[in-house]
Order: sequence, then C-alpha cells, then structure tokens
Amino acid sequence: MTQSSPMSSTTASYAAVDWGTSSFRLWLIGPDGTVIAERRSSDGMTSTSAAPGGFEAALERHLEAAGAAANTPVIACGMVGARQGWVEAGYIDTPAALAEIAGQAVRVPGIARDVRILPGLAQRDAAHPDVMRGEETQLLGATRLDPDASGLVCMPGTHSKWVRLSGGRVDGFSTFMTGELFDVLSRHSVLSHTLAEAGRFDGDHADFRAAVSMALERPALATNIVFSIRAGQLLQGKDATASRARLSGALIGLECAGALSFGTVEHAILVGSGALADLYRAAFDVAGITAETVDADVAVREGLAHAARQIWAL
Amino acid sequence: MTQSSPMSSTTASYAAVDWGTSSFRLWLIGPDGTVIAERRSSDGMTSTSAAPGGFEAALERHLEAAGAAANTPVIACGMVGARQGWVEAGYIDTPAALAEIAGQAVRVPGIARDVRILPGLAQRDAAHPDVMRGEETQLLGATRLDPDASGLVCMPGTHSKWVRLSGGRVDGFSTFMTGELFDVLSRHSVLSHTLAEAGRFDGDHADFRAAVSMALERPALATNIVFSIRAGQLLQGKDATASRARLSGALIGLECAGALSFGTVEHAILVGSGALADLYRAAFDVAGITAETVDADVAVREGLAHAARQIWAL
Repeated sequence: MTQSSPMSSTTASYAAVDWGTSSFRLWLIGPDGTVIAERRSSDGMTSTSAAPGGFEAALERHLEAAGAAANTPVIACGMVGARQGWVEAGYIDTPAALAEIAGQAVRVPGIARDVRILPGLAQRDAAHPDVMRGEETQLLGATRLDPDASGLVCMPGTHSKWVRLSGGRVDGFSTFMTGELFDVLSRHSVLSHTLAEAGRFDGDHADFRAAVSMALERPALATNIVFSIRAGQLLQGKDATASRARLSGALIGLECAGALSFGTVEHAILVGSGALADLYRAAFDVAGITAETVDADVAVREGLAHAARQIWAL
Repeated sequence: MTQSSPMSSTTASYAAVDWGTSSFRLWLIGPDGTVIAERRSSDGMTSTSAAPGGFEAALERHLEAAGAAANTPVIACGMVGARQGWVEAGYIDTPAALAEIAGQAVRVPGIARDVRILPGLAQRDAAHPDVMRGEETQLLGATRLDPDASGLVCMPGTHSKWVRLSGGRVDGFSTFMTGELFDVLSRHSVLSHTLAEAGRFDGDHADFRAAVSMALERPALATNIVFSIRAGQLLQGKDATASRARLSGALIGLECAGALSFGTVEHAILVGSGALADLYRAAFDVAGITAETVDADVAVREGLAHAARQIWAL
C-alpha cells in the first residue's frame, strides 16, 4: 500500500475511486481539482467482498486514512459495480455516448455517505459479445468529452480493450485476454519454472520484437509460438529473460494482429503507464502503428472528475 | 490405476512402457505380439522423479504387479527420456527417418534389467525450434514403417503435434499448446469458476462448432474469442457447458488454423482416442479436412513393439 499524507488544511470536494478486481486506488480531490491525498492498495473487489464489513468498511478505512470528512461524496468505477461487486451498476449498451456515463451512475443504498458507482459498457452482439468496467471511465478522461473524439483507443491490461470511437461515441470494442494469459502461462504452464527466474526487459529486447513480429505475421501460430519458447530453452539455450520477453511479445503481437484484423490501423491512442505502455509502444512500432500515450492513472482520475462535476454540479 | 491380471502361463517377451509427464502405461507383450497384462497409473515423470527409489522402483513395482520375470527387457518412450527424466535419451534431428529411432535407444546404466529408452525428435530451426518425446513412437506405430508414409499427421494432446511426413521421414513438425492452454484457462482464469460446473459435450455441440469456425476464420482474434466466453455468460446467459465447449472449440480451431497456415490441408491422419479424437474429427469437419483415425494407444504400443523387435531381434 502507498499513500500520501492528507493536507488537513484543505477540505476535499469528493473522493475518486478506481476499484478493480485486484486493486483499489483512491484520490481526495480539492475544490480546484488538485489531488489532496492518494491511497493505493490491493483491497480489490475479490478480496474485499470476502472481508469483514465488506466494501463499506474497506472504503471508510481508506477515506479516514486519507483524511476525508464524514460527508465527502465518493465517485467510483470498475468491478465494484459488477454483479459480484458492491452494488450492480449495470451496463450502457453500445453504441454508447461517453457523455451518458455519469447520468447512469448508481447510488449505493442504505448508507449515510453519498457513494456513486459508474456503469460499464456492453456490446450485445451475438457473435462478439463484450463488456468493460472501468475502461469507460478512462475513455471519458482520455477524450475529455471532446465531441470530435474519434479513432482507435488501446487500453492494455489483464483484459486489454481496443475501442472504436467516433464523435465521442463508442461504436464497438474488443477485449483481448493478453495480461491474464501472460499471467496464467507464467505461473501455471510448462514455462513457469523458467519464467520465475526471469529479469526485467524492455521493448528493445530482440526476443520481444521477434515474437511480436512473428505473431503479427502468423497469428494462427500463436500457441505454437508459445510452445517454441520451451523448445528454444531446450535447443537454443534461451535464458529466462529472453523466454519471458518472447511470451510477452507473442501475446502483445497477437493482440495487435487482432486489432489489425478489423482493418488498417495507422494510429491509436494508448492509455497506459510505465513498463507496460513502453512494451505496447514497441509493439506498435513493429506493427507500423503510431501512438499518442495518455497516462492511465490520469485518464481514470479525469474521467471520475468529469462524472463528479456532472453528478454534484461541482 | 487400472490393471489387467497377469496370465502366469505365458512368459512375456518384453514390456512396453509409455512414460509421460503425468502418466505411466505398461504392457507385457507375449512372443506372438499379444498383450498379456496391462498397467495404467499416474506415476508420471514428474511425480516419479521425486518419489523414493525414483524411476527404477516405480518400474519394478509395476513389472512385478503385471507378473513380469526378473529378466524381461523393457522398451520405453516419452518424457522418461528427458533431461529431467530417468536417463536422457537425446533427440534425433529433423529431417528424421522413423527407421532410425530404435537404433538411437539409450540403455539405462547400472541396473540388472535391460531397459532401453527411445530418443525424441528435435527441429533445430532458428525461427521454429520444436521438440517431441513419445509422439515419434506413436508415428512409428501409426505408419508401421511404411516406406511411402507421407502426408500430415495430427496428434492431439497437452502439446498437440502436427507432423509433415514424406517417404517415412519426418520433414518438420509444429507443436501447439492446445491441451495445456485449455487446462490452465479452465483452472486458473476468469473462466474457471463457471467451467468447473460444466458437463460433457461432444463435437456436435453448436457452441463448439461456432467457436471452431470463428477461430478458423479469424485466428488473430484468438484471445478475444476466449474473453467473449466470459462476456457471453454475462450478456447472453451462456451456461457452463456451452462455455467449456466454446473454449475447447476456440483452441482446437486455432490449432487447425495454424496447421492450415502452412498450406492447403485436405487430409490428415489423426492419432487419438476417445472424446478428444471425436472433437478433433468435428473440428476437421468444420475446416474441410478429411481424417483417418489411428488409436493413440495402439499406435504407441505398435511403435514400441517395432523398436523392441529391432533392438532384441525378436
């Protein structure tokens, strides 16, 4: 858990919370929109739903630690609004105008504090059903409600999203299980023993780029490329870091191939941070896609800020 | 563990053992080539290497239970010959004539019994390194050393193999991590909770065939198709069995798309058994591939029998 000390001299206008499956982030926002205090922890939806006091107790504990008042309102997004979360916040169906999101927020009933949870988006397409929760708020922040916001937005993560936007509206989106596959293959497959010893690598690593390139050229060989990582250890003496770079490259390359399978992609907005955003930029480079990066933390906080201003007329 | 009772009136010529990562199968073979006794257990390479007495104790226990004599020789294939197995049996490099396999068997040193372990095959290709252990023996059995054996052979499993044969020689092969991916996604992903409740399905299941078809048409969307299984549960009320059928269909369809990415495939020899072979036949049907099925158990036993005859001039 990380935190910044509350500045007791300022009263927060609201608290913004990004509450995912396995992570919790809270920012206390002052009247001028600045961040007064921040909390980050692993109190995600899954662990919180099973803990004593559940969601309310966890939220109040973080608010108190951040120095929030008893009447500070809270705006939240993410899996906390799923059926198995705190209160189900439903979905807005695509095509979905980003401007509608705040209006569909659900207030948590039966508690004194004013807590609102933003809805997710659903693509009710028989052949390509898809859902998001949390990323719609990042989109809201990344586009700043620009009525002309159009193009392709890539949001890497456990369940990476590629979103097709036109005129501030989400026309459709596709989720790729890239991060989760990387995780389960790293921890539970024939590769896990070696990958546990891997060091850091970045988007310049030759094995990362080679695997991106191979997955882009021959996406049908995806699970063959993954097995060849094991064979490369046995026959070519590939080390743990090279193996990890190859697995990452194969899965990110496969995701890019999927996005490109909808048509030519020359440019995308990349909503990400840190090392993961670096890897995606490198994969985009291999794929010939130019990118403009928006920090994921900033995007979700600005999306929550937009919704807060709309809901409470701040 | 299953076993058949030994017929003490017949003396076995040899014991044939298929010793994989997680399974052990032994057949006592009589002078006329018939099976005298059989043992099946979960004493695979991984558990045996850590057990007291290791590989020798496990083998002797099964031989005694099957009624083998102290001097019955043993021919074995599979991961028992890997570096982390009993004795490393090395690899024959592709292009590899199947007729060479028996000649490269390694005798286990330092024990009284004559135990030989067959080598695997290695494809030392910089871009497509690949290995097999056990499947080369199935190939030996499936082709019965036909000098004209040519075409494509599919061997489904944890690490499915597609082998290009010409004139009794393995020109090249590709491993797809289909079975292992199905296993890790079923047990460790966002799908695991639902899939644990799934019932049986077969290759006629509409969701299986739809997923095969989608993966064949758009292999680049593989990880998107897998995530859409979760979305289908949330938005379309897809049940556990339909979800499991979709995951299986997506992964087998992706494997077929990979095989087809090397060129047109009209026919393949399918070395498999039971429900898994049925699913592959159904996927082949969707992909327009005709198949001739060879039972996997029979194939490995015949491959071991061929090697035994060659080694001991039986």
